[in-house]
Amino acid sequence: MFEQILRNVRRQQPLIHCITNYITTNDCANIILACGASPTMAEAEQEAAEIAAVAGALDINIGNLNAMTVAAMHQAIAAANWHNVPVVLDPVGAGASTYRMNTLRDFFEKYRFAVVRGNVSELLAVGGAASNTKGVDAGAADAVTEENLDERVTFFKQLSAQLGAVVSVSGAVDIIASPQKAYLCRNGHPMMSRVTGTGCMLSALTAAYCGGNPEDILEAAAAATVAMGVAGDIAYRKTMEAGQGTGSFRVYLMDAISLMDAETLNGGMKLEIR
Amino acid sequence: MFEQILRNVRRQQPLIHCITNYITTNDCANIILACGASPTMAEAEQEAAEIAAVAGALDINIGNLNAMTVAAMHQAIAAANWHNVPVVLDPVGAGASTYRMNTLRDFFEKYRFAVVRGNVSELLAVGGAASNTKGVDAGAADAVTEENLDERVTFFKQLSAQLGAVVSVSGAVDIIASPQKAYLCRNGHPMMSRVTGTGCMLSALTAAYCGGNPEDILEAAAAATVAMGVAGDIAYRKTMEAGQGTGSFRVYLMDAISLMDAETLNGGMKLEIR
Amino acid sequence: MFEQILRNVRRQQPLIHCITNYITTNDCANIILACGASPTMAEAEQEAAEIAAVAGALDINIGNLNAMTVAAMHQAIAAANWHNVPVVLDPVGAGASTYRMNTLRDFFEKYRFAVVRGNVSELLAVGGAASNTKGVDAGAADAVTEENLDERVTFFKQLSAQLGAVVSVSGAVDIIASPQKAYLCRNGHPMMSRVTGTGCMLSALTAAYCGGNPEDILEAAAAATVAMGVAGDIAYRKTMEAGQGTGSFRVYLMDAISLMDAETLNGGMKLEIR
Repeated sequence: MFEQILRNVRRQQPLIHCITNYITTNDCANIILACGASPTMAEAEQEAAEIAAVAGALDINIGNLNAMTVAAMHQAIAAANWHNVPVVLDPVGAGASTYRMNTLRDFFEKYRFAVVRGNVSELLAVGGAASNTKGVDAGAADAVTEENLDERVTFFKQLSAQLGAVVSVSGAVDIIASPQKAYLCRNGHPMMSRVTGTGCMLSALTAAYCGGNPEDILEAAAAATVAMGVAGDIAYRKTMEAGQGTGSFRVYLMDAISLMDAETLNGGMKLEIR
Repeated sequence: MFEQILRNVRRQQPLIHCITNYITTNDCANIILACGASPTMAEAEQEAAEIAAVAGALDINIGNLNAMTVAAMHQAIAAANWHNVPVVLDPVGAGASTYRMNTLRDFFEKYRFAVVRGNVSELLAVGGAASNTKGVDAGAADAVTEENLDERVTFFKQLSAQLGAVVSVSGAVDIIASPQKAYLCRNGHPMMSRVTGTGCMLSALTAAYCGGNPEDILEAAAAATVAMGVAGDIAYRKTMEAGQGTGSFRVYLMDAISLMDAETLNGGMKLEIR
Repeated sequence: MFEQILRNVRRQQPLIHCITNYITTNDCANIILACGASPTMAEAEQEAAEIAAVAGALDINIGNLNAMTVAAMHQAIAAANWHNVPVVLDPVGAGASTYRMNTLRDFFEKYRFAVVRGNVSELLAVGGAASNTKGVDAGAADAVTEENLDERVTFFKQLSAQLGAVVSVSGAVDIIASPQKAYLCRNGHPMMSRVTGTGCMLSALTAAYCGGNPEDILEAAAAATVAMGVAGDIAYRKTMEAGQGTGSFRVYLMDAISLMDAETLNGGMKLEIR
């Protein structure tokens, strides 16, 4: 069902401007290339606005803030908003420090985001709900389960309305919600959380898909999550068959994204709409 | 013999706070995840203390200092010391510049470290001995050999007493020394020095093992070195069998750490106590 | 024909000082190690000059400038020029922002470079010619083709004379030009542009080869390009045979560089001199 979304990215090769953390930025650039888009990671205050203004999408990731990158983020988001460039926000480790929460509050006051994407703990923190953030990984008590699924879907639809942005939440069941409609995705494998940056990579992929499909943000965000999940399934299978570990899994994950086509995606997706 | 050390890490999944260099930080985060712990790489002065205070261990790596990271390191180490969070220090390229030596001197004056881990040249520089540092790799004249082993063990036991920290030294023979006791490890392969960050990764792994075993720092540091050495042996074997190079070796090294269990460790270790 | 160039690097293990972007710095350090040299990525203003002064070569890459790295670059290049350490400049994304163009202009006014290496769009921007820079990837209209090859070779020979530096240009046909002589290399595969950092890696490799061969800059730069191209050919073949994607391709590329010898290089090279 997401054929057109994938095709638009490969055809238009949108320029995706990322201001992200340096821990996983190489993986983010590589996944953007793997799906057919073109990355640029410029984060100097002196050039952030100039580059964001001509980008197809902007990916903002707060996994490693400092005074310089925060200043550049403000420049870039303001320019993107002005030029109607869709902005994806990944609130990495939201709730883990006062600095991150204050930065996020400032962002939400001043700017519009197309998608806010993170794990459950981060999104709960963004929503101001009680959350169990532990560093940058999701707290166990926050997990989306089949038992609390209805409640969580309702919560994230409301959060989407409140933020004026598509909300994309990663977990055992991924939820991609607009105020009216939510995609639920059951692809992916826990091994993905044993490799750093799979969340950051998904945000970068979401930005790439949004950049190629600025009129279909909800579907673009859902397609990115599904593509990442199906790639995770494929990579896990390959890793287990060969008796390998997380190093190989990470390589196979990138392989699977670079080889992803509509047939593989549709054949592998476990998707539900609520 | 290190079963309990490994098990404690996988069970408690300690949060490991790293302020390290951006060259190898992705590998550091991945090895922390691979051994069962949880990484966070926050390095802003605005949040470093807050995050270090709740971490299981702190990993400080001076491979790429600047004014901002040095300030964050001071905040984080002070908070860790106050909250009894063990701190691992990796004095990368100590002796290669005045800036690094001054930063280290300042650290040793003000703070306590649980483990100081580096290559021989770096530890000799830390000890104020004559050293042949060349960039960030160990100088050949500094190498620990079977000939100078006794002398070097004695030196590092004394250095451990002087620093009030376990001293963990990488080389053809690794030495992990407290004032009274030293573990000698003969695992690992020179190919490890043809991949960047294997030293940084070992420091991160040491922090993860210390985070899960704060009452057994010497054993935790030794277990980390042995695990890395055995992983190096396994990765080298796989690389040679497949006729591959350093790119594959790096992937197999991460695989081996993520698959490491007590049986593999005990079956492969070449350990001596002096 | 480049036997001696390769051998000098492996024998002398020159220390290569890189001030580069954090997106691909891990790959740069790894390729320097893979070819037999020794990397150091120090970029603090406080130590950049001290380290550059004793390096075998300096690699400057403007892919992610900020006020701190620009200051460190000035310190390092000035020290390298003073001590006759060859400097390789990679003008990543030249033309993509005013900040980068101003920084480059400042560099060319003040310093001497041994090699300026980039893609066609970047070199055209450096030359002040009309260029179609799009982020950090080469614009399609700028491509070197068999049709415009003569014209481009002439242009880059002139640019080499104007800059007082060897000009090394990557594309479907690579051109490595001095004022009098140009090497044309037809190795490599478009998949290289689907992995981030292959350009940065080639600049780092060029610096390593120059560090081992400071008297033969043109040949060193040509050998680096040919080695990267032949490695790309090998990696592409392995990736296709195994039905894998860009994640595996990246690993195989590093493997091929670490295994590169004169026989493989001479057997695989598609080189022409004009």
